[in-house]
Amino acid sequence: MSISVVYNGAAAVNSSPAPVPGRVSSVYSEVQSSRIDHSLPLPSVLRSSFTIVDGPPSSAAGNPDEIAKLFPNLFGQPSAKLVPCDSSKVRPDKKLKIGVVLSGGQAPGGHNVISGIFDYLQDHVKGSVLYGFRGGPAGIMKSKYVELTSEYIYPYRNQGGFDMICSGRDKIETPEQFKQAEETVKKLDLDGLVVIGGDDSNTNACLLAENFRGKNLKTRVIGCPKTIDGDLKCKEVPTSFGFDTACRIYAEMIGNVMIDARSTGKYYHFVRLMGRAASHITLECALQTHPNITIIGEEVSAQKQTLKSVTDYIVDVICKRAELGYNYGVILIPEGLIDFIPEVQQLIAELNEILAHDIVDDDGLWKKKLTSQSLELFEFLPQAIQEQLMLERDPHGNVQVARIETEKMLIQMVETELEKRKSEGVYKGQFKGQSHFFGYEGRCGLPTNFDSTYCYALGYGAGALLQSGKTGLISSVGNLAAPVEEWTVGGTALTSLMDVERRHGKFKPVIKKAMVELDGAPFKKFASLRDEWAFNNRYISPGPIQFVGPASNAVNHTLLLELEAGA
Amino acid sequence: MSISVVYNGAAAVNSSPAPVPGRVSSVYSEVQSSRIDHSLPLPSVLRSSFTIVDGPPSSAAGNPDEIAKLFPNLFGQPSAKLVPCDSSKVRPDKKLKIGVVLSGGQAPGGHNVISGIFDYLQDHVKGSVLYGFRGGPAGIMKSKYVELTSEYIYPYRNQGGFDMICSGRDKIETPEQFKQAEETVKKLDLDGLVVIGGDDSNTNACLLAENFRGKNLKTRVIGCPKTIDGDLKCKEVPTSFGFDTACRIYAEMIGNVMIDARSTGKYYHFVRLMGRAASHITLECALQTHPNITIIGEEVSAQKQTLKSVTDYIVDVICKRAELGYNYGVILIPEGLIDFIPEVQQLIAELNEILAHDIVDDDGLWKKKLTSQSLELFEFLPQAIQEQLMLERDPHGNVQVARIETEKMLIQMVETELEKRKSEGVYKGQFKGQSHFFGYEGRCGLPTNFDSTYCYALGYGAGALLQSGKTGLISSVGNLAAPVEEWTVGGTALTSLMDVERRHGKFKPVIKKAMVELDGAPFKKFASLRDEWAFNNRYISPGPIQFVGPASNAVNHTLLLELEAGA
Repeated sequence: MSISVVYNGAAAVNSSPAPVPGRVSSVYSEVQSSRIDHSLPLPSVLRSSFTIVDGPPSSAAGNPDEIAKLFPNLFGQPSAKLVPCDSSKVRPDKKLKIGVVLSGGQAPGGHNVISGIFDYLQDHVKGSVLYGFRGGPAGIMKSKYVELTSEYIYPYRNQGGFDMICSGRDKIETPEQFKQAEETVKKLDLDGLVVIGGDDSNTNACLLAENFRGKNLKTRVIGCPKTIDGDLKCKEVPTSFGFDTACRIYAEMIGNVMIDARSTGKYYHFVRLMGRAASHITLECALQTHPNITIIGEEVSAQKQTLKSVTDYIVDVICKRAELGYNYGVILIPEGLIDFIPEVQQLIAELNEILAHDIVDDDGLWKKKLTSQSLELFEFLPQAIQEQLMLERDPHGNVQVARIETEKMLIQMVETELEKRKSEGVYKGQFKGQSHFFGYEGRCGLPTNFDSTYCYALGYGAGALLQSGKTGLISSVGNLAAPVEEWTVGGTALTSLMDVERRHGKFKPVIKKAMVELDGAPFKKFASLRDEWAFNNRYISPGPIQFVGPASNAVNHTLLLELEAGA
Repeated sequence: MSISVVYNGAAAVNSSPAPVPGRVSSVYSEVQSSRIDHSLPLPSVLRSSFTIVDGPPSSAAGNPDEIAKLFPNLFGQPSAKLVPCDSSKVRPDKKLKIGVVLSGGQAPGGHNVISGIFDYLQDHVKGSVLYGFRGGPAGIMKSKYVELTSEYIYPYRNQGGFDMICSGRDKIETPEQFKQAEETVKKLDLDGLVVIGGDDSNTNACLLAENFRGKNLKTRVIGCPKTIDGDLKCKEVPTSFGFDTACRIYAEMIGNVMIDARSTGKYYHFVRLMGRAASHITLECALQTHPNITIIGEEVSAQKQTLKSVTDYIVDVICKRAELGYNYGVILIPEGLIDFIPEVQQLIAELNEILAHDIVDDDGLWKKKLTSQSLELFEFLPQAIQEQLMLERDPHGNVQVARIETEKMLIQMVETELEKRKSEGVYKGQFKGQSHFFGYEGRCGLPTNFDSTYCYALGYGAGALLQSGKTGLISSVGNLAAPVEEWTVGGTALTSLMDVERRHGKFKPVIKKAMVELDGAPFKKFASLRDEWAFNNRYISPGPIQFVGPASNAVNHTLLLELEAGA
């Protein structure tokens, strides 16, 4: 089946140039204002008449039989691709009612996905209605929504944050919650729903799509790939939005710190970066800035490194640098590092078990419940870290890895080891550690030109997929190394990204997080250069994100290297 | 006395466009590269023939009699102003030998001061030589220097950091050190020396100038106003360089955090900003971003606030915001806050005394030496802060205020107070604090167009002052709210900025730090708006520094408001 759509407008950008009141309770900076009216290019296939062509039947990322059972109505459906066509094949417009929801943590560009959907409807199916669910998936369940008009959307064009309709971390999971969602989409008579989120949210989107189809509801569901962590991607979805902007913001800060390190010549800066599961952000920032040391969680895990071996690696580099006359440097560490270390995972698992079931006494008798290896590691940790491990827990009672200040922990461990080597006479340098954590600063920045344009195409494409009756697909924009005109647009079957995990004795569908591949092009490039960076100070300072002029249309290294390798 | 100089060149910018090897061991980002060849406008007085006109005799900022005794050769000398003149009054060129030194912490733009001096010499006194002393004032004492050529300087044009010749915090203080400095300037046959630094370094520059003149050495000394803290300024020197760039970098991060806060709706972000002595950075960032709460150290001090009263102020705002439905916010805190609180100053003074003379026993018997008020405060502090106070000390053995994580301390105090109010039933909100410290990230960024141009003019003007035989002046570029062509250029007698302090029974000259004036225009504007910002969320996100296009030539609020008020 394929349907066709005709391109109606001249330039499908910023359909509402009329001055409207600014963002609620907000004043705009000059740069923010200038971004609102920044015009966005569209891939050429979206600028002329197109038709949607289906690919071959799809399978799953793993355990296709189980996925087929979990998604009886959707499993095996083909991916879809937009191709230019003769405008004579046009089918008549039928006005649509579409809902959109932002799910999970912020990523720069989310507002542009929404404006892309809106503009698609304006350009192709005039008279359609777009609802924004407020506060994430809870907004669907509680039927909290707002009609998104041209005036409402305008002040958020090309702006960071998710504050247009806000987001939330709730999931639609229980039968009652699915029922609530059904009631809402029925009440609003929705033809479609766009879920903008990460791996979990897109899994949820697929379950909704399956559920709606199973109940013969007309509401179709399309996902959009969002996460600054960069761990939701596959061949058809080359990157998740927000990754580009967040990495550039972090890289600006790292570059500044590098110049500072070189100017003073007396500090080692330990920079922890976001990325709890995968180390893509750390790897991309390394490729942008060339730090002396970069720890990639996936490598630590693959090599079964210990905290001691990571510390030794850092200390070895510091000692050799001291011999070369450098008592300064910059070290990048992924947020989730200690979660990647098998012995630490074991310790945390034991602690979670003990904290859930036992009393933690002040005398430390509880420690007897730890295995000897875990006890040894626990006692090896600096006291502040021991305390952090025992302190705040997430809602499930688990140790909060994100709360652990890994960069400070490493500084203490490095200090201790360097003192030892100094007393042995093998290290004669000076060491002063400075810790940094770059996290929230990057999630809500003004999206780069790349993220602005990419998100707009994702949203515009999602509109096209919904109008053509597609469901259970993730909006897919490809060929991203080429000029925007040549970008491809389509949708990928969400079931094809899925595998199952066994939880509480049941199979649960999951979109596997895309981890840093140690044989992938970005890591291989990094691995081939890191010794050079370690000892020869090849710092690069990318500077602040530019919206006009030099570097304003650059594509990040990870994406470019992966695209080149895949080409 | 006035001498004249003719303008030789066409455009006194980037005299060396030829491709040269990049910064030592360094690779350039696209933005860095584009900045190297960014052409800088000069004030029109520097682009044509000018003469230097002396003003009336000067006095001192305080205790003129003591200053006169300390600077018998320099006291009372007039300030100087460059004015356009007929080129017929030109005096013949005599080749010069000039030294330049960077002193103290980094500030964006330092490299441009040096390129400004260099280009002045190239344009006006061809064949002159510029030496850069390495590693700060120690480079003068140890005679460590490099000849700065066109090729050497080129890769640093418009770049951040101080790594061209690096900096240091040594001072030239003892008779032996002055002797060393004399030997170096004699050996190099220096006609002049430019000291780029903050209040202390400029005081030192003036002492050097006095010493050289007293010894009948030909070496003249000119200072340049550097510090991101913005606390070296006066009527003739409207701002110190680096302040503009650093504030814009911090404001970008704060703006991002604000959008994040509004999008998630569940965090209070406590942002500590650099500025140990004065709160100019915090004030400027507040004016740029409109946070809910801003603590200005000078106000805390003037109102003799306590840690409890500061905490209560924050908690009051949080409670009222909770009633309005906002359980999120952004709070700015100056690095030196707790140093401004009289009771804390008292505690720190007592601790310094005890730490210097007594044994700190584990049983806490040492605490009996504290006054009852200080003991009460010490026990009121969260344990982590108590430990920090007792831990690392500066080289003089004093408590290191910069090490104290004030933002974390305040979060803990606010949490405790909110729990109390919750138990009393007067607070029903949710509070989660997130801490940030923006420091090193801002010191070494790529200088804004303003700082690039301002520094270039400061250096170019310093060259003119030296060629005309001036000494003991600080390079002064004014009328900064006007277009660059209309900027004024001259030098201000350093002795006129000085007062004395009694130290170890002797009078020591000091340039008083310019604090935030509570009746000054920037603070008054902030004070008139802060309640509006507290409860109505008027967040502004300035976005990343732009070098081209919108906002790329903006002037910061503090400077603009002070210039307007002074006009």
